[in-house]
Amino acid sequence: MIQLLPVTGIPEVKPGDALGELIARALAGPLHPGDLLVVAQKVVSKSEGRLARLDSVQPSQFAANVAKRLGGKDARLVEIILRETKRIVRMDGGVLIVETHQGFVCANGGVDLSNVDGGATASLLPVNADRSAADIARAVEAAKGVSLPVIISDTFGRPWREGLVDVAIGVHGLAALRDYREQSDPHGYKLRATLVAEADQLAAAAGLLFRKNAQVPACLIRGFDFQAGEGAAQHLLRDPEHDLFR
Amino acid sequence: MIQLLPVTGIPEVKPGDALGELIARALAGPLHPGDLLVVAQKVVSKSEGRLARLDSVQPSQFAANVAKRLGGKDARLVEIILRETKRIVRMDGGVLIVETHQGFVCANGGVDLSNVDGGATASLLPVNADRSAADIARAVEAAKGVSLPVIISDTFGRPWREGLVDVAIGVHGLAALRDYREQSDPHGYKLRATLVAEADQLAAAAGLLFRKNAQVPACLIRGFDFQAGEGAAQHLLRDPEHDLFR
Repeated sequence: MIQLLPVTGIPEVKPGDALGELIARALAGPLHPGDLLVVAQKVVSKSEGRLARLDSVQPSQFAANVAKRLGGKDARLVEIILRETKRIVRMDGGVLIVETHQGFVCANGGVDLSNVDGGATASLLPVNADRSAADIARAVEAAKGVSLPVIISDTFGRPWREGLVDVAIGVHGLAALRDYREQSDPHGYKLRATLVAEADQLAAAAGLLFRKNAQVPACLIRGFDFQAGEGAAQHLLRDPEHDLFR
Repeated sequence: MIQLLPVTGIPEVKPGDALGELIARALAGPLHPGDLLVVAQKVVSKSEGRLARLDSVQPSQFAANVAKRLGGKDARLVEIILRETKRIVRMDGGVLIVETHQGFVCANGGVDLSNVDGGATASLLPVNADRSAADIARAVEAAKGVSLPVIISDTFGRPWREGLVDVAIGVHGLAALRDYREQSDPHGYKLRATLVAEADQLAAAAGLLFRKNAQVPACLIRGFDFQAGEGAAQHLLRDPEHDLFR
């Protein structure tokens, strides 16, 4: 059995707050061996000060053009998105899909106005969410004396399928991918091309608890035999040379 | 708390087996209100006889050409894949990504040689996995007196991200998508574009128990407040006209 346990009672997080300590304090009861933690991106970005006030931004001419083309998006928001952008993947139908400096392909570069202060301030993805995950793991270990893996998750759209799902944007302490390619099935058939994105599956499971309106920014997952390792969400990014979809 | 409970003790499934009854018999203990069931595609396809022996297939000239171009794939396997195909999305680098007759975009049209009989027989996706889910729900209700939602899951690759994740290919009894667009966050900011693919998140969570080598073809999910509804995996398919990625 696997248990998904919501971590509640974390106060509203502000820039500079020691998020790992707040999470450690909120973890009720003793940790079990094999526990792992999934933390939603928004509180991580807040604690790291990855916020941008719309009224602090002067949109470039290009940002203004893009905003217009996207059917009247706020040009200041587009400017913030473009600053997070390494490459524009698609821009059409009111949607701006970009590759971020960290390599994630997502709508609006992960820039989001919800759950901050009512629309005046955007949250940005952490600069390096693998490092954010490591920082939280270190703080939890210092406070609780137990080392546990940490995943930072965010909610992304996908091609071909409707709706958002949570994926891992930061990973520390477990293998993001599990490789079954050397193994055989019970019928002796050698498995091919079977690389499972376990960090993404864990993020999606935790996402069941991360409702937009619920005050649950973290989830403890108990009973999953993850594969220990240093881990990195970077391992989940397809090598551009081998990605048919670019 | 959400619990992911493996359903074990289901015997090797053969064509014609009443899968819903086998699952109902394997469900240990009483069902709780709000339970839902995720069933892995492979046993569904087996029970529905959605199997094709490689040596029963005569590859077309096109299948032979494609097999060669893909670096020596078995032409009979390619023929089987093409029969499941409405549209070829990409064919390159050894990979054949197609849209199936049901509308799913996936590698090899969901045709798979693993976990059948050692490589001589391919399993195909159910003809209509929404109907498969409804059939299982009906059989479980008849046996246990409790109506519960059913998701059929399969393991798909994605653009941009490495590794496979489980997604819903059949849904019955719950809303595949949950719509937050009418709601506001705790700061009064109206949420936009927030349609969550809950059936996919549930499939991914169950996927944590569906290891390739484990004998766990079904998972009971307890404690998730799904949104009841008729449901259909078809709702998870992006309208081609609004899909920037086609």
